[in-house]
Amino acid sequence: MLIRTIAAGTALTLSCLPALGQTTAELPAEINVNTKVLIEQALEDEVGLKFVEDLTTEIGPRLAGSAQEKRARDWSVAELTELGFDNVRVEPFAIPFWSRLEDEVSITAPVPQEIVATALGGSAETEEGGVEANVIRFADMRALSSANPEAVEGKIVFIDEGMTRTMTGAGYGMAVRKRSQCARVAAEKGALACLIRSVGTQPHRMPHTGIMARDGAEGALAAAAISGPDADQLTRLLERGPVQVRVNIQTDIRPNAPSGNVIAEVAGTDLKDEIVLIGCHLDSWDLGTGALDDAAGCGIVVGAAKLIAELPEPPRRTIRVVLYGAEEVGLFGADAYARRHAETLNKHVLAAESDFGAGPIWQFQTRFGEAALPYGRAIQQILMPLGVVPGNNEASGGPDIGVLRRSGVPVVTPAQNGLDYFDYHHTPDDTFDKIDPEEFRQNVAVYAAFTYIAAQTGWDFRKSEDMPVASQ
Amino acid sequence: MLIRTIAAGTALTLSCLPALGQTTAELPAEINVNTKVLIEQALEDEVGLKFVEDLTTEIGPRLAGSAQEKRARDWSVAELTELGFDNVRVEPFAIPFWSRLEDEVSITAPVPQEIVATALGGSAETEEGGVEANVIRFADMRALSSANPEAVEGKIVFIDEGMTRTMTGAGYGMAVRKRSQCARVAAEKGALACLIRSVGTQPHRMPHTGIMARDGAEGALAAAAISGPDADQLTRLLERGPVQVRVNIQTDIRPNAPSGNVIAEVAGTDLKDEIVLIGCHLDSWDLGTGALDDAAGCGIVVGAAKLIAELPEPPRRTIRVVLYGAEEVGLFGADAYARRHAETLNKHVLAAESDFGAGPIWQFQTRFGEAALPYGRAIQQILMPLGVVPGNNEASGGPDIGVLRRSGVPVVTPAQNGLDYFDYHHTPDDTFDKIDPEEFRQNVAVYAAFTYIAAQTGWDFRKSEDMPVASQ
Repeated sequence: MLIRTIAAGTALTLSCLPALGQTTAELPAEINVNTKVLIEQALEDEVGLKFVEDLTTEIGPRLAGSAQEKRARDWSVAELTELGFDNVRVEPFAIPFWSRLEDEVSITAPVPQEIVATALGGSAETEEGGVEANVIRFADMRALSSANPEAVEGKIVFIDEGMTRTMTGAGYGMAVRKRSQCARVAAEKGALACLIRSVGTQPHRMPHTGIMARDGAEGALAAAAISGPDADQLTRLLERGPVQVRVNIQTDIRPNAPSGNVIAEVAGTDLKDEIVLIGCHLDSWDLGTGALDDAAGCGIVVGAAKLIAELPEPPRRTIRVVLYGAEEVGLFGADAYARRHAETLNKHVLAAESDFGAGPIWQFQTRFGEAALPYGRAIQQILMPLGVVPGNNEASGGPDIGVLRRSGVPVVTPAQNGLDYFDYHHTPDDTFDKIDPEEFRQNVAVYAAFTYIAAQTGWDFRKSEDMPVASQ
Repeated sequence: MLIRTIAAGTALTLSCLPALGQTTAELPAEINVNTKVLIEQALEDEVGLKFVEDLTTEIGPRLAGSAQEKRARDWSVAELTELGFDNVRVEPFAIPFWSRLEDEVSITAPVPQEIVATALGGSAETEEGGVEANVIRFADMRALSSANPEAVEGKIVFIDEGMTRTMTGAGYGMAVRKRSQCARVAAEKGALACLIRSVGTQPHRMPHTGIMARDGAEGALAAAAISGPDADQLTRLLERGPVQVRVNIQTDIRPNAPSGNVIAEVAGTDLKDEIVLIGCHLDSWDLGTGALDDAAGCGIVVGAAKLIAELPEPPRRTIRVVLYGAEEVGLFGADAYARRHAETLNKHVLAAESDFGAGPIWQFQTRFGEAALPYGRAIQQILMPLGVVPGNNEASGGPDIGVLRRSGVPVVTPAQNGLDYFDYHHTPDDTFDKIDPEEFRQNVAVYAAFTYIAAQTGWDFRKSEDMPVASQ
């Protein structure tokens, strides 16, 4: 395989490239041509977008462990079979099930007012009919952690921490801490319930759900997120005097609910035992129809794989599309997959998950062996005309891919622009109309391109020897 | 009073002025100066904005005839008294009361999915537990009207008519027709319930309530509005086959609920029997806190009147601030006011209502006698530096002002830019955070200016004789 230096002036984005002098693997001519054809076709994609539309319309919300998630698996198996994929199947597993039955929050004094709220995933129940108490507000999770228990005991805790809007979603991790920890810390200090300002960036009266830490569930509290405008209202009222709130959360909790990963393949040829895995998650939260989170990801990987399947020649390696189950409630599908496929993880040559909506991909990150970086650069070059700049070599691969990455599987993250992702994520507003078809198709193009290159070149992304890189 | 021709080049907005050669009344110098001082002060307004913040925070939603509307009256009386207004009082009247107890809409087949919905104001009840039937969709109200009753009988009607976004709110009247008429027409054709696409312009899962026609209530149907994304979802599902929906609406309907108009005045001097009325409505729908509709209007007129009250000299005419009750459910406050003040309507020299949110005023419309148009032009000239262009002489004055206008009271409409008004109006999202303080203050400035001029000049806006206009 030839090694060459990146030519100056390749793209407008040149200033974002790694320093000149770094080496780039050269794509064999036929693969180069096929990849460009795939990209062209992907930019006209109908299959992937229709998958999203149909899944979110015909099934709708898909709470992990629910009858709706089961319907989504059955629907996906039928759909992927109809699309002509190989080895379409469900790999089942069991999960602890949680769903909301009632989740009402209201101000009862000084004047009655409804609060737009949603129970956090995994929330404990309040006593029947709810608990009612004065509210104590904390600016952030740290303030609650350091609060005097005497001030908190018998009260309803309210953590009013906001979230910063960023392209990368970097604000989410910080903001989500309060969602994860509020109930536990508030319980330790004798609070009756925990309310948090919704983890999200939109200014509407939309509550944002999501999983909270469930360990120590015995002592855990009922916890709910309230919308941004309701958090503002509560804060303004608290500035004026004591505020009494009622929180009523009733849930359905069961062990051993059915979930499963749906798998479909484009069978490889001479390297068919080697797997290029592209994934998404099939479950969603219950408030919206899970269009951005994560039907979009499923449509992107299905659309990309379908385009490759339609090439005149099947790829050398097997492309495995994994629609993970039960991601939202604790990455159960990812763990089940890793356990079930433990013996072949070393045959997984590359993995990636699309799970950040349908915004345009602006950067392509890798996590390859040092000596395999020229392969990454070759892919990055192919993607530049799509507006994608090279990224670092510290890709996460995506939530469900973490367990594979930790097992040594090379991963990539085609980083999407998520500036508006948390306007919709985990809210009732996560619906099909929020997807921009052109941006969605750019995602399909990126996935089709790198997946095909990884499957067809036979490149070893684990490579850690020094240069020069051996031929494929 | 001098009459002069508008000087060319007065403002950038000159091209929007009436044809040159039209006459403009000249403001007495002292009034001119005071008006400009009022405008400057209004642009720093705190009183009006705080009125909105406090009303929407400390009281919240104010459904007509409810205990909340009563609280709002009590609160307003205390607040207006505290602000130093004269003759603060409630003029009570009774209204038929309607409120939602339950309003749930869900898809039951082919798969269960929740629909974000809200009962329309005045909706009839379904049978207990709801009605369930197949949906029949109509593109617009006209299509339902001309439908064969056999196709509609036993079904749940869905009218999928959208609304056009305009600066003037012109799209509302057309779209609201379906809200008003759906239940009656659907009932005549034997339908079980009526669903409409929310009358609104935002893309979020926010339902939009509002009053429906209540005459013939005996035979009327239960009716609800569903959010835009839910209307999209229902339409997509209907393209795929039959869809069954359950509609459950339970209501509280009572005659003779208490409502009332809250009135506060800046007492005039030598012309104190002559009234300049500036109004708003105090009631709101129940879903949001009625910040834009219409706490904002109340804050604007209260803020404007308060500034005038603080001038060294009280105005010649009495400025009457009217916070109408029960506007949303049928202009009951407007009717009560007109009945109660029938004998002094001829002493009402000018009236206007702020009831279109808090967007900036871009045009000043009048409805004056022909010979009084020079007064209108004088006011329009004063407002130009605020970005306000002259409008026509066909002002409506606002919903609660209609009955005064029809009685011959001259009215003005300071027309606001309502491009985003129907993103929030009548939805849960109508909350204080949606108000832009700078735009709000521009409204206060406009109201302070024309109200002061009307009260202080003694101009007769009814004037219908020919030119030249007599001196004040």
